[in-house]
Amino acid sequence: MVRQDKIRFGAIIHGVGGNISSWRHPKVASNQSVSLPFYIQQAQKAEQGKFDVVFIADGLFINEKSIPHFLNRFEPITILSALAVATKNIGLVGTVSTSYSEPFTVARQFASLDHISGGRAGWNVVTTPLESTALNYNKTIEQHPSHAERYQIAEEYLEVAKGLWDSWDDDAFIADVEQDVFFDPHKLHTLHHKGQYFSVQGPLNIARSRQGQPVIFQAGSSDAGIRLAAKDADAIFTHGASLDEAQKFYQRVKTEAIAFGRNPQEIKIFPGISPIIGESLEEAEAKYQEIVELVSIERALAYLGRYFDHHDFTQYDVDAPFPELGDIGANSFRSTTDYIKKYAKQEGLTLRQVALREATPKTAFFGTAEQVADLVQEWFEKEAADGFIIAVTVPGALDDFIDKVVPILQARGLYREEYEADTLRGNLGLPFKESRYVKHTVS
Amino acid sequence: MVRQDKIRFGAIIHGVGGNISSWRHPKVASNQSVSLPFYIQQAQKAEQGKFDVVFIADGLFINEKSIPHFLNRFEPITILSALAVATKNIGLVGTVSTSYSEPFTVARQFASLDHISGGRAGWNVVTTPLESTALNYNKTIEQHPSHAERYQIAEEYLEVAKGLWDSWDDDAFIADVEQDVFFDPHKLHTLHHKGQYFSVQGPLNIARSRQGQPVIFQAGSSDAGIRLAAKDADAIFTHGASLDEAQKFYQRVKTEAIAFGRNPQEIKIFPGISPIIGESLEEAEAKYQEIVELVSIERALAYLGRYFDHHDFTQYDVDAPFPELGDIGANSFRSTTDYIKKYAKQEGLTLRQVALREATPKTAFFGTAEQVADLVQEWFEKEAADGFIIAVTVPGALDDFIDKVVPILQARGLYREEYEADTLRGNLGLPFKESRYVKHTVS
Ligand SMILES: Cc1cc2nc3c(=O)[nH]c(=O)nc-3n(C[C@H](O)[C@H](O)[C@H](O)COP(=O)(O)O)c2cc1C
Ligand SMILES: Cc1cc2nc3c(=O)[nH]c(=O)nc-3n(C[C@H](O)[C@H](O)[C@H](O)COP(=O)(O)O)c2cc1C
Repeated sequence: MVRQDKIRFGAIIHGVGGNISSWRHPKVASNQSVSLPFYIQQAQKAEQGKFDVVFIADGLFINEKSIPHFLNRFEPITILSALAVATKNIGLVGTVSTSYSEPFTVARQFASLDHISGGRAGWNVVTTPLESTALNYNKTIEQHPSHAERYQIAEEYLEVAKGLWDSWDDDAFIADVEQDVFFDPHKLHTLHHKGQYFSVQGPLNIARSRQGQPVIFQAGSSDAGIRLAAKDADAIFTHGASLDEAQKFYQRVKTEAIAFGRNPQEIKIFPGISPIIGESLEEAEAKYQEIVELVSIERALAYLGRYFDHHDFTQYDVDAPFPELGDIGANSFRSTTDYIKKYAKQEGLTLRQVALREATPKTAFFGTAEQVADLVQEWFEKEAADGFIIAVTVPGALDDFIDKVVPILQARGLYREEYEADTLRGNLGLPFKESRYVKHTVS
Repeated sequence: MVRQDKIRFGAIIHGVGGNISSWRHPKVASNQSVSLPFYIQQAQKAEQGKFDVVFIADGLFINEKSIPHFLNRFEPITILSALAVATKNIGLVGTVSTSYSEPFTVARQFASLDHISGGRAGWNVVTTPLESTALNYNKTIEQHPSHAERYQIAEEYLEVAKGLWDSWDDDAFIADVEQDVFFDPHKLHTLHHKGQYFSVQGPLNIARSRQGQPVIFQAGSSDAGIRLAAKDADAIFTHGASLDEAQKFYQRVKTEAIAFGRNPQEIKIFPGISPIIGESLEEAEAKYQEIVELVSIERALAYLGRYFDHHDFTQYDVDAPFPELGDIGANSFRSTTDYIKKYAKQEGLTLRQVALREATPKTAFFGTAEQVADLVQEWFEKEAADGFIIAVTVPGALDDFIDKVVPILQARGLYREEYEADTLRGNLGLPFKESRYVKHTVS
């Protein structure tokens, strides 16, 4: 099948690395997660590779068992605002939780980032998996909301945020010096939202941006997550499991978007992948082994435990079959934990096998640049993805991908040579986000 | 009296201008409050003038009666993070309210800004004056807390934030690749705060910065405000009323700081001033008149009303004596409203006179560069100030001040020729902020 659109890429920047033991690699600096020069270098490299976005993940709870790259890292809003000044065209997408924040503040910070960057801001909406997060925020939140309620909160939260973003019509600030009128009062819309979880009067104290509103990403692949995305998101960041699963996920999201009355082209699906590229298959294999050997079983068990809300897996025999866990994990990273439970049973794996599989780069995107380009093309053409978020597990992987795979895809006519636009919506092939208050006159 | 230290300056960047009608001035662009180039230009100018800080004020509620420069503006955390990349030495101070935010998030954003800027972050702690702010945040806050309670909340909030900032000792992240130890567990401190307003477990997911902790500014001049500053702040931003009042305020803050067992040198006092500089006194006068003439009585009444929590002053005869207001305003900008009530009565002013006085630049720092330099020197030497925050009411005033007044003060040996440090604490003459967990061995 020939697709009319082009492949897109994002780069997720993970400081000391996306893998639990990447920090041990000789090419990784231990303070890389709070190094502005490192983040600027990665973002500029991604921009040189004509990527759509840089992407910053996040979390709001750590303890002494947490994975190194979660312990000490930049907060997304701040680092993205800094990267806005060091880049020109690339989108700036950051993770903020709807379970542990206030819509007035978050809508405002993303709107401000959108102005700072000239229309390149994106928000990765997450509901926060870890139950213990409530321990850092219980001024008012006594308990971590259930998985279902978190998504209900998220839905109302997005309603509020989008409402606040439309507080001022695009041409509200007329600044008529003669008449002493700074804004046209008919172009101001006070939200007056009163819902189940939020009451927010508005208006927001910032104008709409060059792309209308920040782009909404959603990360969360459970039924409730897919529903939220199909209704409200411009893009999804998801796991990149297998081609078959990715195709099913893709179909499902597009179908649900249509059911919400949306144009399926206007929700872009980005599986996350960790490409490992060598001059030969053997070199790629060697790079992979270098990372795998850094992973100890203790670290792998701790990493696995985090998905299951810091469940302690050291209590089990690692060489016995993967334990029966009942509901553990279902209120946390549900889509991930369901998936792990399922494949562990189906394939009859031991705890050790599962832990090591999760803790090592489980990438299908592996081999020479030519081979990786083939895989990217296949997933794209078979409608498993509209684009990919590239995670770095092997240091240098982003550079390899941009220097070696991108030119092949460009030569095949599958990938842009230049940015089409200077806003994120423009580059994503999404229209300017019109205000809800725009009246269309029928001609 | 000869002081050993030097004068310091900050620049408050107010977008379309600090005065209610500055936006009408022909030299002001109407979108200046959301213009990154304008903010970068002002910050770089302040850095060229060897200022200690750029300062961003803030507010969390607007309505159709709000002053133009509050309606559409950058959010402080985002714009300061952007300015970090465009500057090298200058401090980056932003206003965030302790009444409408969560300490885990705010401590983290300032810590992240501190890393991004290499140790130049500062937080202007405010408690939020406007009661209607609760309307934008009542997910959980049903009512705006009283003036007294806001300061209690602020005090506990700062305890939490400072505790979170010390989560990791300076040398906690050892990244020992051989031993597979990323951090030394003895150098991790989990806060476990349980107080009246907040329960926050910690630890924070970011390391201490090059200056130890972000600098704390405090803005709020009531008794409770002074107490909070004397106990917890590194610097105060205050009104620049008269020399006499400023001296009293200065003495009082230093005395209270000593009572808290602090070194009075380690709390710096910055009155805000709006210098207007001309080649001659007549030119300064003409510049002043240009601004005054832009102010209508309607705008002046609205501006005055904001201090009194959006009280509607149009209900009174503007040429009758300033009305009896009882308690109105006391739960809002208390120190300001008390002050206005007092002088209106003492001087027997009409509402019109008060409104116009508040709405026009009420600056003593007025005249030729030489005259303004004399005033600055006098206030400094007479211990009315450790430094000044320069607000721009007349477009170009910051440039005038830096190009004309600063060289005079440098020639007099009162002001730095070069930055002493590249952290904000270093430039403010404050020591590196040691962690509370550092043990001093007696030698
Ligand atoms: C690809 C992907 C990326 C995610 N990134 C984050 C993140 O950066 N921060 C976060 O708190 N949660 C993240 N999540 C978690 C989800 O937002 C969600 O809270 C959790 O997965 C449970 O939702 P689900 O069952 O719908 O997947 C991510 C989930 C997926 C699938
Ligand atoms: C010089 C000065 C600057 C202030 N700046 C801000 C600000 O930017 N944002 C804000 O919400 N409040 C600001 N405030 C208000 C105070 O934080 C406080 O909420 C209010 O003035 C009541 O406190 P007070 O009675 O102690 O002055 C400022 C107050 C002063 C005196």
